[in-house]
Amino acid sequence: MADFELMRSLQIQAKTKIVMLILDGLGGMPIEPGGPTELEAARTPNMDRLTQEGALGQIVPIGPGITPGSGPAHLALFGYDPLTYEVGRGVLEASGIGMEVREGDVAARGNFCTLDEQGRIIDRRAGRIPSEEALPIVERLQAIQLPDVELDVRQVREYRFAVVMRGPDLDPEIEDTDPQATGVPPLPARPRRNAARRTAELFDRWVALARQALADQPKANGLTLRGFSTDPKLPAFGEVYGLHPACIAVYPMYRGVSRLVGMEVLSFQGESPELEFATAAETWGDYDFFFIHIKKTDSRGEDGDFAKKAEVIEQVDQALPRLLELEPDVLAITGDHSTPARLRTHSWHPVPLLLWAPETLRADDRQSFGERQCALGGLGTFPAKHLMQLLMAHAQRLRKYGA
Amino acid sequence: MADFELMRSLQIQAKTKIVMLILDGLGGMPIEPGGPTELEAARTPNMDRLTQEGALGQIVPIGPGITPGSGPAHLALFGYDPLTYEVGRGVLEASGIGMEVREGDVAARGNFCTLDEQGRIIDRRAGRIPSEEALPIVERLQAIQLPDVELDVRQVREYRFAVVMRGPDLDPEIEDTDPQATGVPPLPARPRRNAARRTAELFDRWVALARQALADQPKANGLTLRGFSTDPKLPAFGEVYGLHPACIAVYPMYRGVSRLVGMEVLSFQGESPELEFATAAETWGDYDFFFIHIKKTDSRGEDGDFAKKAEVIEQVDQALPRLLELEPDVLAITGDHSTPARLRTHSWHPVPLLLWAPETLRADDRQSFGERQCALGGLGTFPAKHLMQLLMAHAQRLRKYGA
Repeated sequence: MADFELMRSLQIQAKTKIVMLILDGLGGMPIEPGGPTELEAARTPNMDRLTQEGALGQIVPIGPGITPGSGPAHLALFGYDPLTYEVGRGVLEASGIGMEVREGDVAARGNFCTLDEQGRIIDRRAGRIPSEEALPIVERLQAIQLPDVELDVRQVREYRFAVVMRGPDLDPEIEDTDPQATGVPPLPARPRRNAARRTAELFDRWVALARQALADQPKANGLTLRGFSTDPKLPAFGEVYGLHPACIAVYPMYRGVSRLVGMEVLSFQGESPELEFATAAETWGDYDFFFIHIKKTDSRGEDGDFAKKAEVIEQVDQALPRLLELEPDVLAITGDHSTPARLRTHSWHPVPLLLWAPETLRADDRQSFGERQCALGGLGTFPAKHLMQLLMAHAQRLRKYGA
Repeated sequence: MADFELMRSLQIQAKTKIVMLILDGLGGMPIEPGGPTELEAARTPNMDRLTQEGALGQIVPIGPGITPGSGPAHLALFGYDPLTYEVGRGVLEASGIGMEVREGDVAARGNFCTLDEQGRIIDRRAGRIPSEEALPIVERLQAIQLPDVELDVRQVREYRFAVVMRGPDLDPEIEDTDPQATGVPPLPARPRRNAARRTAELFDRWVALARQALADQPKANGLTLRGFSTDPKLPAFGEVYGLHPACIAVYPMYRGVSRLVGMEVLSFQGESPELEFATAAETWGDYDFFFIHIKKTDSRGEDGDFAKKAEVIEQVDQALPRLLELEPDVLAITGDHSTPARLRTHSWHPVPLLLWAPETLRADDRQSFGERQCALGGLGTFPAKHLMQLLMAHAQRLRKYGA
């Protein structure tokens, strides 16, 4: 039986509230052999107290040794088998900024780039032009029309935008036009199968018109497209679990994946943990599941900045009382994957998990939240896609299976 | 998605080198309740140092409670689901001594036996005649011909040989002719299905001719056949992982399973751990994956000789510096299964695993290599078939899954 059938058949309504607090790329490594990891080095009195009252474990995002991208890692956290459900990057980006991608639409991520007189790329990110400079350029793209299809183009941030094409018989099986190199021109949109030939031609025509519209630009005079994809038709999170879910995230891509599973994506200003927790407080009565996403742990990990990553963890810890005073019934603090500062990139290492559910948790005797403690935690090491079932159980929202 | 699809799609080339050092039947038990296991009793300063720098865990060869044969246990180590991929014992034996078994061929293991005047088995191993005595007898078998099929017969060692039949419409679904008892005659080759009837008849005719050719032999005047099987068409290890793999093993069966997955099986004289490590040193530049197999841990376990099994482990430990000076990027020391001296046979117990990968490992705080330490190791307990994915990750030979 598929996991979702089990969830659908066992879910019951309750007044309990679940918070899934994701510190992106939380898992780390010692920066020096024998030393602490980022999480172990961070001073986290609140998380440590929750650990003493709760239990630790580790989650494996995709499988042993497999380093996840953010999309599949979040699908796993939401209980979607990341090897079964695939979401294209174009759809993620478009959804993240609130664009609608329907079944049959084709979405792509776009980058402005700088081309030389021979049409060769000399800067793949158009000098990272600021958002305010890019906005009028995006507006020129919005004016471009093609017969038989509708087009929507929107700015993401800086040199990045998203484009969605809608019309009959479109097919997203198209290769990226970004050659991932400078000194060569952007590639044409190449179909991976015959059914995608016309769609590729339409995108090529659109790119040609865009080039004309951008010809006078000093930096953003070209563009590349990546991650052509369509609506992945994901089962709705709310229906699978019988929850009213809300997403509190700053970055578009996490808002995108939440929207794709049907979560309500909350709007708020700013990006500190305090503000995110305050947003949860303001909407506490309206939802029973809160996905709260902290991005900067991952960013500092990718920078290779061990101390700064630990500092972000400390900031989250300091803000935690604001979240705890809401008295969630179940709180999970974990990550979507590991991003050890030592490796400066996502990694395959299991992700530390802290689970707190005072009414139902069989506490272990771990004392502080950290990788070594989690490896020996009472929850064991298990696939991330099973986490939601566990949270549902601790929220007392699942009935017995069988008599 | 099948694991191999994932490996094929994620593999990247790198200059890193992986060593998988298998101590056959490594897992043990206390010979007396409360005492140490073989591995815990052995003095292993080198492995203990690697433990302090690395991390421990346990692998489960087939599934909880399932005792593996050597074939499936090694397939699992190589990442092949041992419940999906099956390799017949005849093919293993034939491949082990370098015989070619093509698709459609039927291979079997043979034992010489001693028959009385009524044709009943009085010794199932023909008095364990030495190899030099068996060789001329095998040559008599090589002279036997049958219409429409080709036959190849080769000595394995002592009273054991392998036979491969090649021709149209052969089928390996045939029961062993060894009755596993004395006082009864060898059984005929009985087909398990109609399609195998002719093949069974051909083997029976071959056995009858062999009996005539051996009639004057005092000990080896009969034979039994086991493990009828054909080429299992295993995906090639090198292609699945993008590695150039080499096998360093003394015993035919481990060389056989390595050859069946397409590894280069290296030739060398002698059988000490030092010689096996020296072979790795000599060929270090030619390969990026080394499977090194030590047999005697298992043999001494099967003898029930606790002290001798611990001694073999100590010999490997003493030889380890020779391997470490090659500076592998990833080194796994584990076994294919457990063979506790106390049980004198293969067992289902999880197998201790030591993983050392100084660049990428999140070390745990284990201090010495042993079963109790491994059960609490940072790598956790996981299926053996996932070990290769983990080694690939630590060798930084896998790209990210999804965006």
